[in-house]
Amino acid sequence: MTFEITSEFLENLSKLIELKKNKAIEKLFEEVHYADIAEVLDEVNFDEAIYIIKLLDSEKTSEILTELDEDTRTRILENLSAQEIAEEISEMDTDDAADIIAELSEERQKNVINALEDIEHAADIKELLSYKDNTAGALMAKELVKVYETWTVAGCLRRIRGQAKDVSRVHSIYVVDKKEKLVGRLSLKDLIVAKNDQKIADIYISAVDSVNVNEDDEEVAKIMSKYDLEAIPVVDDNNVLLGRITIDDIVDVLKEEADRDYQLAAGLTQDVDSDDSILDLTKARLPWLFLGLVGGVGAFLIMEGFQGVFAKYAALFFFTPLIAAMAGNVGVQSSAIIVQGLANDEVKGSINSRLLKEMLLATLNGVILALFLFVFVWLYEGKVNTALAIAVSLVVVIIMAGLIGTFVPLFLDKRGIDPAIATGPFITTSNDIFGILIYFLIAKLILGI
Amino acid sequence: MTFEITSEFLENLSKLIELKKNKAIEKLFEEVHYADIAEVLDEVNFDEAIYIIKLLDSEKTSEILTELDEDTRTRILENLSAQEIAEEISEMDTDDAADIIAELSEERQKNVINALEDIEHAADIKELLSYKDNTAGALMAKELVKVYETWTVAGCLRRIRGQAKDVSRVHSIYVVDKKEKLVGRLSLKDLIVAKNDQKIADIYISAVDSVNVNEDDEEVAKIMSKYDLEAIPVVDDNNVLLGRITIDDIVDVLKEEADRDYQLAAGLTQDVDSDDSILDLTKARLPWLFLGLVGGVGAFLIMEGFQGVFAKYAALFFFTPLIAAMAGNVGVQSSAIIVQGLANDEVKGSINSRLLKEMLLATLNGVILALFLFVFVWLYEGKVNTALAIAVSLVVVIIMAGLIGTFVPLFLDKRGIDPAIATGPFITTSNDIFGILIYFLIAKLILGI
Repeated sequence: MTFEITSEFLENLSKLIELKKNKAIEKLFEEVHYADIAEVLDEVNFDEAIYIIKLLDSEKTSEILTELDEDTRTRILENLSAQEIAEEISEMDTDDAADIIAELSEERQKNVINALEDIEHAADIKELLSYKDNTAGALMAKELVKVYETWTVAGCLRRIRGQAKDVSRVHSIYVVDKKEKLVGRLSLKDLIVAKNDQKIADIYISAVDSVNVNEDDEEVAKIMSKYDLEAIPVVDDNNVLLGRITIDDIVDVLKEEADRDYQLAAGLTQDVDSDDSILDLTKARLPWLFLGLVGGVGAFLIMEGFQGVFAKYAALFFFTPLIAAMAGNVGVQSSAIIVQGLANDEVKGSINSRLLKEMLLATLNGVILALFLFVFVWLYEGKVNTALAIAVSLVVVIIMAGLIGTFVPLFLDKRGIDPAIATGPFITTSNDIFGILIYFLIAKLILGI
Repeated sequence: MTFEITSEFLENLSKLIELKKNKAIEKLFEEVHYADIAEVLDEVNFDEAIYIIKLLDSEKTSEILTELDEDTRTRILENLSAQEIAEEISEMDTDDAADIIAELSEERQKNVINALEDIEHAADIKELLSYKDNTAGALMAKELVKVYETWTVAGCLRRIRGQAKDVSRVHSIYVVDKKEKLVGRLSLKDLIVAKNDQKIADIYISAVDSVNVNEDDEEVAKIMSKYDLEAIPVVDDNNVLLGRITIDDIVDVLKEEADRDYQLAAGLTQDVDSDDSILDLTKARLPWLFLGLVGGVGAFLIMEGFQGVFAKYAALFFFTPLIAAMAGNVGVQSSAIIVQGLANDEVKGSINSRLLKEMLLATLNGVILALFLFVFVWLYEGKVNTALAIAVSLVVVIIMAGLIGTFVPLFLDKRGIDPAIATGPFITTSNDIFGILIYFLIAKLILGI
């Protein structure tokens, strides 16, 4: 079942395109899944991609377009007329259609929508475009199978045959009243098992989960994965059925969310992948590095302030990278645990109890690590005082780093800010500076300098 | 639709349990989704949880058990007899049943399986337990709707009514030949649209994706999300149909994978959450911190080796935290991009071309950052030589850090090792040491010390 893009395949394809052997190209792609064709198009050169898109029929190319890498798709769409794009769009489900139209300039959006032949499809797409990004409305599709509670099973089966043709997958049949308000659901299974003359009103299940059209998409993802739902109906404030969201869209939301958290933790400000241009990658990386530079200058100023101590206690200075690394690592660990807990709704109880727990944890880790460091410095330098000062400072720095790492994401979350930005470079940089400052202050105190 | 756990609810529940008002408790939970009841059980004290589990009927509690936090479940199962667990298990789908039995000790596993009344269910569970962790076999369920290609539509509809009762969601109907080999699929929709006297052989779709029972579960997740599949049949080496995997299981695999990568990047060795005990959290955190400690000692030894330079070029030493932070941040950024690219199958082309790109990127970032640092040191210290030495070293360190961050995950991946372990503390620690060493060597060279 798996299709591998080989260099022979690509060479063969190039040759066929050069010779304009259209029949052979169509045959080559006949048995290939559209997701695989999309990968081929990401590999071939741009003119070849355009050639293939224009050659294959729109039933196939519409699916391919939805699977393409956004950069490639943008360039291809720029080379198609509004009429050609409308042809592709008319083959797509409303949610995919709206996503792709949203990538066009406002003027082209209008032209493409006007070029759509199916007026209802056009109205649905317009409606979807009107919802805010990252809401249930922006995620949902208008395609669904809907029956009225007054229908009979037989009438229902007859009528949904028509509706079902437009819906690629029937998860649930939604039951509405005369005012189009959602009252319940049915599965195809229930319908098959029921007798022909039964009324829908007698067999539908009235317990139906739904989400409001303005609900945040990450919240929808949480609800669907918590309750193991494969589709969820979307309603407006009056409970009127507007559309439905399916689990495959949720998989994409979850992936994006995980990718973003991971990138923030790694110090990347925007969604980039390894194939992006050097300029895009620099834009994503440089701001965090600049933050690190500022932090490093801060550490420099602190150390310079203590330079009088160097003559007698040079070792103190040589351990600053260790102190900074520990403060950074502990901070990232504790913030990551909190960020993940918040994402999974697992963080309960007060901030104070969290901070207390982190303090105990950091003390335990800190004491164990400090013991090792104490023994090393004592044996290596032969000065028990210096060893003690460094070890005690390390414990305090680790506790402080743990508390900052725990507090900052909790605080941001309370303020309604995404706590994920607190992980990574932000925490490491602030902990570097605080850590080194506290380290010198405590060491000075213990050594009586 | 949303159920909120309030403190009033919990108090009320406690009171009812104390007074043994079983009817009232059952009524309280009547309309509550099992996923919500599971959250209630994670909140109440342990005796209350046991009381509720023993009270509610096994149709409900079996679902609750699958949703519980693993720690809570383990403790509850310890308090149930093999017979009681078997009752719960008999209500579960085979995949959930196998997952829960796998958490028991080997002896209890045998007792529970022997206590199962349905021999076929027991055999299915035993089969699932025999597959290796993280394979398609361990993920799949035995429940599915299967028809033979020789049946008619009418006969098929009649027969699948029986099969469908055991299957909570019918995604696809799988078509097999006489030897139980998978030959195609049908949707319920196709069946409804078809005429009663048609043969299955005439209407089924022969293009059916499937995965081998020994396939890695992350690979299955990739295939299902790439091809937008909601269920995939699992076959053995002879293409005999063994079970099916549904998209909700894949959502869990994707979440676990994302969580693990995130935790590795943050320096947590095992799956922990914020509610785990201090001991578990220490076990997850201490090894990485210890690595950081060793790295810090390495940095200490390097700096000590250069201490003769201090009298004349003290500033060099005060910039070591900056150098270490930059080396660490750049390393984490470039490794994270590679790790994500590998996870999404986006990293194509040779290692050399990746390294070249990273070198250009790091040079660009490095030069911009070094310019700022150069100006700062020059103005602050008034020594153009020192400023130049530090700035040039920074560029070289950033390039080296980017190369290590790019190379290590690619290398690990080629060797079949999870590249995610290369992110986080591993990369920061090694880059700290290399960074500081290179920094001093280059500074010495430029300053002619």
